[in-house]
Amino acid sequence: MLSAIFEEVGKLTLKEVDIPEIASTDEVKIKVEVASICGSDIHILSDPPTHPATPGIIQGHEYIGEVVEIGNNVQNVKVGDRVIIDPTTVCGHCYYCQTGIQNVCENFSTIGIFKDGGWASYSVVPSKNVYKISKKVPAEIAVLAEPLSCVINGSEKIQTQPGDNVVILGAGPMGQLFTQVQKAAGAGQIITVDLSDYRLEHAKKSGATHIMNPTKVNVEQLVQDITKVGADVVIDCVGVLFDQTIELVRKGGKVLLVGMNENANHPIKQCEITKKEITVIGTIIQKNHFPKVIKILEANILNLESLITHRTSLKDIHEAIKTMRKGEAIKIMVYPEK
Amino acid sequence: MLSAIFEEVGKLTLKEVDIPEIASTDEVKIKVEVASICGSDIHILSDPPTHPATPGIIQGHEYIGEVVEIGNNVQNVKVGDRVIIDPTTVCGHCYYCQTGIQNVCENFSTIGIFKDGGWASYSVVPSKNVYKISKKVPAEIAVLAEPLSCVINGSEKIQTQPGDNVVILGAGPMGQLFTQVQKAAGAGQIITVDLSDYRLEHAKKSGATHIMNPTKVNVEQLVQDITKVGADVVIDCVGVLFDQTIELVRKGGKVLLVGMNENANHPIKQCEITKKEITVIGTIIQKNHFPKVIKILEANILNLESLITHRTSLKDIHEAIKTMRKGEAIKIMVYPEK
Amino acid sequence: MLSAIFEEVGKLTLKEVDIPEIASTDEVKIKVEVASICGSDIHILSDPPTHPATPGIIQGHEYIGEVVEIGNNVQNVKVGDRVIIDPTTVCGHCYYCQTGIQNVCENFSTIGIFKDGGWASYSVVPSKNVYKISKKVPAEIAVLAEPLSCVINGSEKIQTQPGDNVVILGAGPMGQLFTQVQKAAGAGQIITVDLSDYRLEHAKKSGATHIMNPTKVNVEQLVQDITKVGADVVIDCVGVLFDQTIELVRKGGKVLLVGMNENANHPIKQCEITKKEITVIGTIIQKNHFPKVIKILEANILNLESLITHRTSLKDIHEAIKTMRKGEAIKIMVYPEK
Amino acid sequence: MLSAIFEEVGKLTLKEVDIPEIASTDEVKIKVEVASICGSDIHILSDPPTHPATPGIIQGHEYIGEVVEIGNNVQNVKVGDRVIIDPTTVCGHCYYCQTGIQNVCENFSTIGIFKDGGWASYSVVPSKNVYKISKKVPAEIAVLAEPLSCVINGSEKIQTQPGDNVVILGAGPMGQLFTQVQKAAGAGQIITVDLSDYRLEHAKKSGATHIMNPTKVNVEQLVQDITKVGADVVIDCVGVLFDQTIELVRKGGKVLLVGMNENANHPIKQCEITKKEITVIGTIIQKNHFPKVIKILEANILNLESLITHRTSLKDIHEAIKTMRKGEAIKIMVYPEK
Ligand SMILES: NC(=O)c1ccc[n+]([C@@H]2O[C@H](COP(=O)([O-])OP(=O)(O)OC[C@H]3O[C@@H](n4cnc5c(N)ncnc54)[C@H](OP(=O)(O)O)[C@@H]3O)[C@@H](O)[C@H]2O)c1
Ligand SMILES: NC(=O)c1ccc[n+]([C@@H]2O[C@H](COP(=O)([O-])OP(=O)(O)OC[C@H]3O[C@@H](n4cnc5c(N)ncnc54)[C@H](OP(=O)(O)O)[C@@H]3O)[C@@H](O)[C@H]2O)c1
Ligand SMILES: NC(=O)c1ccc[n+]([C@@H]2O[C@H](COP(=O)([O-])OP(=O)(O)OC[C@H]3O[C@@H](n4cnc5c(N)ncnc54)[C@H](OP(=O)(O)O)[C@@H]3O)[C@@H](O)[C@H]2O)c1
Ligand SMILES: NC(=O)c1ccc[n+]([C@@H]2O[C@H](COP(=O)([O-])OP(=O)(O)OC[C@H]3O[C@@H](n4cnc5c(N)ncnc54)[C@H](OP(=O)(O)O)[C@@H]3O)[C@@H](O)[C@H]2O)c1
Ligand SMILES: [Zn+2]
Ligand SMILES: [Zn+2]
Ligand SMILES: [Zn+2]
Ligand SMILES: [Zn+2]
Repeated sequence: MLSAIFEEVGKLTLKEVDIPEIASTDEVKIKVEVASICGSDIHILSDPPTHPATPGIIQGHEYIGEVVEIGNNVQNVKVGDRVIIDPTTVCGHCYYCQTGIQNVCENFSTIGIFKDGGWASYSVVPSKNVYKISKKVPAEIAVLAEPLSCVINGSEKIQTQPGDNVVILGAGPMGQLFTQVQKAAGAGQIITVDLSDYRLEHAKKSGATHIMNPTKVNVEQLVQDITKVGADVVIDCVGVLFDQTIELVRKGGKVLLVGMNENANHPIKQCEITKKEITVIGTIIQKNHFPKVIKILEANILNLESLITHRTSLKDIHEAIKTMRKGEAIKIMVYPEK
Repeated sequence: MLSAIFEEVGKLTLKEVDIPEIASTDEVKIKVEVASICGSDIHILSDPPTHPATPGIIQGHEYIGEVVEIGNNVQNVKVGDRVIIDPTTVCGHCYYCQTGIQNVCENFSTIGIFKDGGWASYSVVPSKNVYKISKKVPAEIAVLAEPLSCVINGSEKIQTQPGDNVVILGAGPMGQLFTQVQKAAGAGQIITVDLSDYRLEHAKKSGATHIMNPTKVNVEQLVQDITKVGADVVIDCVGVLFDQTIELVRKGGKVLLVGMNENANHPIKQCEITKKEITVIGTIIQKNHFPKVIKILEANILNLESLITHRTSLKDIHEAIKTMRKGEAIKIMVYPEK
Repeated sequence: MLSAIFEEVGKLTLKEVDIPEIASTDEVKIKVEVASICGSDIHILSDPPTHPATPGIIQGHEYIGEVVEIGNNVQNVKVGDRVIIDPTTVCGHCYYCQTGIQNVCENFSTIGIFKDGGWASYSVVPSKNVYKISKKVPAEIAVLAEPLSCVINGSEKIQTQPGDNVVILGAGPMGQLFTQVQKAAGAGQIITVDLSDYRLEHAKKSGATHIMNPTKVNVEQLVQDITKVGADVVIDCVGVLFDQTIELVRKGGKVLLVGMNENANHPIKQCEITKKEITVIGTIIQKNHFPKVIKILEANILNLESLITHRTSLKDIHEAIKTMRKGEAIKIMVYPEK
Repeated sequence: MLSAIFEEVGKLTLKEVDIPEIASTDEVKIKVEVASICGSDIHILSDPPTHPATPGIIQGHEYIGEVVEIGNNVQNVKVGDRVIIDPTTVCGHCYYCQTGIQNVCENFSTIGIFKDGGWASYSVVPSKNVYKISKKVPAEIAVLAEPLSCVINGSEKIQTQPGDNVVILGAGPMGQLFTQVQKAAGAGQIITVDLSDYRLEHAKKSGATHIMNPTKVNVEQLVQDITKVGADVVIDCVGVLFDQTIELVRKGGKVLLVGMNENANHPIKQCEITKKEITVIGTIIQKNHFPKVIKILEANILNLESLITHRTSLKDIHEAIKTMRKGEAIKIMVYPEK
C-alpha cells in the first residue's frame, strides 16, 4: 500500500509498503477512509524539527476508517464498523495512569508520531484506541474527532455557561474549534483574535461575534468596551500570550492555556492573578473524551464543515503540506486512495 | 393609578390607588412598562390557595420598567434607565445570608407576593432589587428575566456541556425555559416531556430535539433508545417525578429537582442513587444571577419570543388569568396602561 | 493450601486446594499475609443470601500480601513487594469504562466474590489489581485499604472542609471509616449515630465528637442544638435513612448515600430537596483511589488500629463469622497460616 | 480614649481622642478587647509605604470586642455579645458585588486602613461587619479570625483532601495559618519552607511534617524525594515564587497564589502549566467566610495559641512594631487598656 513515512529530519517519503497484519488478539485492522493534517505534522517535518517523532514510522495521527479485521479478544467493535482513532497510548501503571489522569502518563506515546499511523491505506492499532461512530456522520467530520477531543478536554475545565463572554487568542485549527465549542456552550460574546485576516474570516463562520487583528486594533480596549469588566474566560490558543490573558480576563475569571511553545517564558505579574482572583488552567490532549466527542458529532451541534478548506490524495501530500506551511489552510483532508 | 390587588382568598381586585412615593434614600420609583403572569400567581389566587401571599398587596412579581425617581443614596441606576426587577428580598443577617446563599434566607420575602408589586403603573422598590438592562432588549423579553434567573441558577448547578443528553420533564414556562437554556448550553439530544401536546409543540420551538407525551408513548424506553445509556441530565420541572428521574438518568448522571409540590412524597429507591452514583440537586429561585441573565438577554442567545403567547391590558387581567388556568398560554404579557 | 470456599447457599467450606499458578503474562502471584472479613462476606453467606456470589470460588476480597512471582509483562510491581489488592475488575470497553467511571462498569466483577480471592495462602490476580505499599505500614492497617478506598471515593465527592459539621448515620465498619476520614478532613462537630452502644464507643475512638443512639435520644433535636442550622453534611452508612438525611442536613448542605439496601423504598419529600437546595450524592466502590489510599496509609493520619477488634487463623474462620454476625466485632483479621 | 493614629508617611502617633459615637441606625459600638498587628500594618508604616492607607485614621484591622451599644435597626448582635470584626467594606452595587464575589468589589475599603479601626478602646462599625462568637473562644484566638478568613478562602479553592501532599512557601503568619489549616484538612506530608529557622520552628508546631530552609537544602530535590511525583498542592505565601510553584507541583496538581508583591514579574514557562495540566488559583481576602471561621474557632481544631509570640499594651505599640520589623514575632497581641 502507499504510505507517507517520516524518513528522517525534514523528510516525508511516499513509499509502497506491505499491508500491516494484526499481531495480537487485542488489535484491530482499519481500512483508512480519510486522514487529515495536524499542525504538529508540520512541526515534525520542519528542519530542525519543532516536535519530536520516530524516524521510519508511517505518519498521520488524525484518521478514521472501517474495521476490516479484529483480534480474538476484541469486544468494542466489529468488522464493518466505522471507527475514529484515539492516537494516544498510555502505560497503565504509572502514578498518573493509576489515578485516572492518563493524559499526563509518564510513558505517553502517539500513533502516527512514534508508531505507525494513518497516512496509508491500512492501519493496525490496539482495539482500545478505536471508537465506533455512526456512518451518518460524514467521514470528513468524523476525522476531526481527535483535535476536537483536546478542545472538549479544555472546555470541560472552564465550564463556560450560557452568556459568558469568551476571548480566544489564535484562530488556527485549535482556535477555530474552541470558537465553535464555546459557541455551542452558549458563550454570549465570542471575540476571536488572530494576525491573519484569512483565519479571522473563518472564525466568523466558526461563531465568533467579534474578530480582531492585533496588528490593526487595540484588543484590550475593545475587549473592555464589549465586556465592560473584562472577559469571563480567555483561551490562549497561540502558546505565548499568558501575560495578555491576565490583562483581558475579568476579576474572578478563568484563563485556559492551550497553546504550547517550549520557548515561551514571559514575565508574569503574579500579583494580578492573586488580586483579581483568577484561575489559570492548563489542558493537555484528552482523557476519556472520545465518547463525548462522538455524542457531539452525532448530534451535529458544531459547524465543522466550515473548517475543511482543502482535499487531496495521499500521493499529493507534499503539496498539501506546503499549503499548510503557507497558512492558507485550516483543515486539509487526505484520501489514501483517491 | 390602576392596580391589581390580592384582596383575599381567591380574589384579585382592580382598583385605583395612589401612586406610591419613595420613602427611603435607598429606594427607586419605577414606571412599569410591562408585567407578566407567573404560575405562582395562579396558585396564589386559587381557592384554597396553593401558594401563600399577603392580602392587600399589589400583586405581580415579574415586571420591568423605567426609573422615574431615585433616592439620595442610590448609585446603581439613574432616572431614565430601563430596569428589570429582582422581586426577592432577604434579611442580610441570617446564617445563609452571611454565608452567601441568600436564596435560602431564613427571612426571605417577595415583592408582588408579600409586598406591593408590579401589576400597576408605578412601583417603588429598594434600589438593590433593580438592575439596568439595555433598551435594545425588547421589553417583553426583558420581563422574562425573573423566571429565567431561576433557570440559570439551576442550570449552573448541573453544568451541562456540549453534547450532553438532557431530559426535561414538564413543558410549562419553567420546562420551556430549561429547554431553551439547555439548548444554548449545547445539549446534544433534548427530550422534553409533557402531558399537553400544545406545550410540547412549543417545546420544539424552544429547542427540544424530541418531544414525548407519556400518555401516548413509553418515555423510559424511548429515552433509552435515543441515549443508549440513559440521559446525562434529567430535570424535573413538574415537582412530583423524582422517582422517574432516577430511572431515566444514566449511571454517573445528574438530576435537577426544580418543580415544587408540597404533597409530593413518593417512594424512592435510594439504593439506585448509590449504585448508579447519581447526583441529585435541588435548586431554589436565584442568588446573584441577574447580571448573568442580563448578559444572556443582551447577547440574544435564546428564543424567548416563542414563549409569549398572549398580550393583555391590566384592566383585562381577569380574562388573562382564566386563559392561564386553562393551560392555553405559556407567557402572557400585561400592559398597565394599554 | 488451605482455603475457604463459598460452596453453595449459606455454606463456606475449608478445603485443601492446589496453589494457583500464573496463567497469563499480566498476572502476579501473591503470598497472602493477612485478610479481613467484610460485611458483604456475611451477606454472601446468609441463607437466603443478601449479596450474590459465585459458588465454588475462594472467598475473601480484603487481603494483602507479598509478590512471589510475576508474569513477563508485569511492570508495576516486582517480587518481594508488599501489595494491597483492588478486588474489582472492569471490562475496559463499556461506555462507563471508556468515560473513566469504571466503578459503574456494565461488566463489573469482584475477586473473592465472583472469582478466587484471598482467604487462602496464595492468590493469583491481574497485575493491574495490585498496588505496592511500604512495608512500614503494618499489614493489619494495609488490609483496610479496600474498604477505605470506598470511603475516600465518597469523601472526595462531598469535599468536607475544616470546620464543617458532619452527621454519620451507622457505625459499622463503613461508618467508623467515614468518621475517621471526616475527622482527618477537619470536620468540626462529628456526630455518629448507631443503635449499638458498643459501636458508638468505637466511634468515639474514631473521632466522633458526639455519639447518639436513636433509641435513647432525639437525634434531630440534638443535631439542631449542636449545629444551630442543621449539619453541613449527612452520610447514610446504613442504607435506609435517606428521609432522615434530608431532615438533618442544613439548607445548601450535602447528603452522601453510602449504605445499600435493595429493599429501601421510603417516601421522600422531594420538595424539601428543592427548597433547601440540597445536593444528594451516591457513591459506589472506588475508581483510581488506591494510590490516594496508599498516601493516607503511609502518612498515618487515621486511627485504624482502633477498628481491629479480633484476630483469627483461617482455620477458625467459622467462629469469626459468627462473631461478625453477632455484631460483636468491627474488623476481624484473618491469618491464612497462623 | 488612647488610640494609635496613622498620622502621615512612616508615622504612627498615640493620641487621646473622643470615644466614637454611633452615627446611623445600622452601626454598633464595640469595646475593644484585644487587637493584633498584621504584616500590612508594617507595610503601611514603612517609609516609603508599601501598602496604601488614609492618613488620620485609627489604625488596626485585626480586633475583637464586646458590643456596648447598637443602632435601632441592628438585628444580628445585641449588647453584651463578643464579636469579631470583618474589616472589609464593599459597595454592594458594582458588577462584582452583584455577582457575589464582593471580595473583588470595585470600591473595596478596609476599616483600620482607610477608615477608623481597632487600635483604640472603642470602635464604631457597620453591624454587617461584626459576627457574634462564643465567649468560650479565648479572645487571643478570636482575634485571629480575620487573617484566618483569608486562609479559609484560599483553602476552599484548593479543596485539599486527606493524604494530599502540600508545600507551603513562606512561614510568616499566612504560611503558619496555611500550615495549620492544611494540617486540619488532612494533608499527608506538609512541607513548609522559609528563610528563617525561627519561623520554621514555629511551622513545626503549626503541623509541618517537614521544614526546609532553601539557603541550606535543595527544596526541589527534597520535595521530589518525599512526594515521588511532586506536590499535590503548592501554596506561595511569599508572593514572588510563582516559577518555583510550577516546578514543585506534580502533573495535574494545584498552585495557590497568596502572597502579594506588586513588583514580582518573573518569567513563567507557560508551556509547563499546559503540559503538566496544572491549575493556578489566585485568592484575595475573603467573602462570606466569617461564619465558617467561627465554626472552626468554636470547634477548636487548630493550634492557634502557638502563633501568639508576644503581648503588649497599646501604649507600647511602637516597641511591638519594631519587634515585628525584626521578624522576631509571629503574632503580637495588643491590649488597648492593659
Ligand atoms: N494543549 C493541547 O491539548 C493542544 C492540542 C493541540 C494543539 N495544541 C497547541 O495549540 C496551539 C494552536 O494550534 P493550531 O494548530 O491552531 O496552531 P496554529 O495553526 O499555529 O494557530 C495559531 C494561530 O495563532 C496566531 N497568532 C500568533 N500570534 C498571535 C497573537 N499575538 N495574537 C493572536 N493570534 C496570534 C497565528 O498566526 P500566524 O500563523 O500568523 O503566526 C496562528 O494563526 C499550538 O501551540 C499547538 O501546539 C495544544
Ligand atoms: N425551583 C425553583 O426555583 C422554581 C422556580 C419557579 C417555579 N418552580 C416550580 O417549577 C414547576 C414548574 O413551573 P411552571 O410554571 O412551568 O408550571 P406548570 O405550568 O404547571 O408546568 C408543569 C407542566 O408539567 C406537566 N406535567 C404534569 N405531570 C407531568 C408528567 N407526569 N410528565 C410530564 N409533564 C407533566 C403539566 O401538565 P398539566 O398542566 O397538563 O398537568 C404542565 O404542563 C412548578 O412546580 C413551580 O412551582 C420552581
Ligand atoms: N457505597 C459503597 O461504596 C459501599 C461500600 C461498602 C459498603 N457499603 C454499604 O454500606 C453499609 C454499611 O456497611 P457496614 O459494613 O458498616 O455495615 P454494618 O456493619 O451493617 O453497619 C451498619 C450499622 O448501622 C446501624 N443502624 C441500623 N439502623 C440504624 C439507624 N436507624 N440509625 C443509626 N444506625 C443504624 C446498624 O446497627 P444494627 O447492626 O444494630 O442494625 C449497624 O451498626 C452497608 O449497606 C454496605 O452494603 C457501601
Ligand atoms: N491573598 C490574600 O488574601 C492575602 C492576605 C493576607 C496576606 N497576604 C500576603 O501574603 C504574604 C505573606 O504574608 P505574611 O504576613 O505571612 O508575610 P511575612 O511575614 O512577610 O512572611 C513571608 C515569609 O516568607 C519568607 N520568604 C521570603 N523569601 C522566601 C523564599 N524564597 N522561600 C521561602 N520563604 C521565603 C520570608 O522570610 P524573610 O522575612 O526572611 O524574607 C517571611 O518569613 C504577603 O505578601 C501578604 O501581602 C495575602
Ligand atoms: Zn502511564
Ligand atoms: Zn437572610
Ligand atoms: Zn466496563
Ligand atoms: Zn462592589
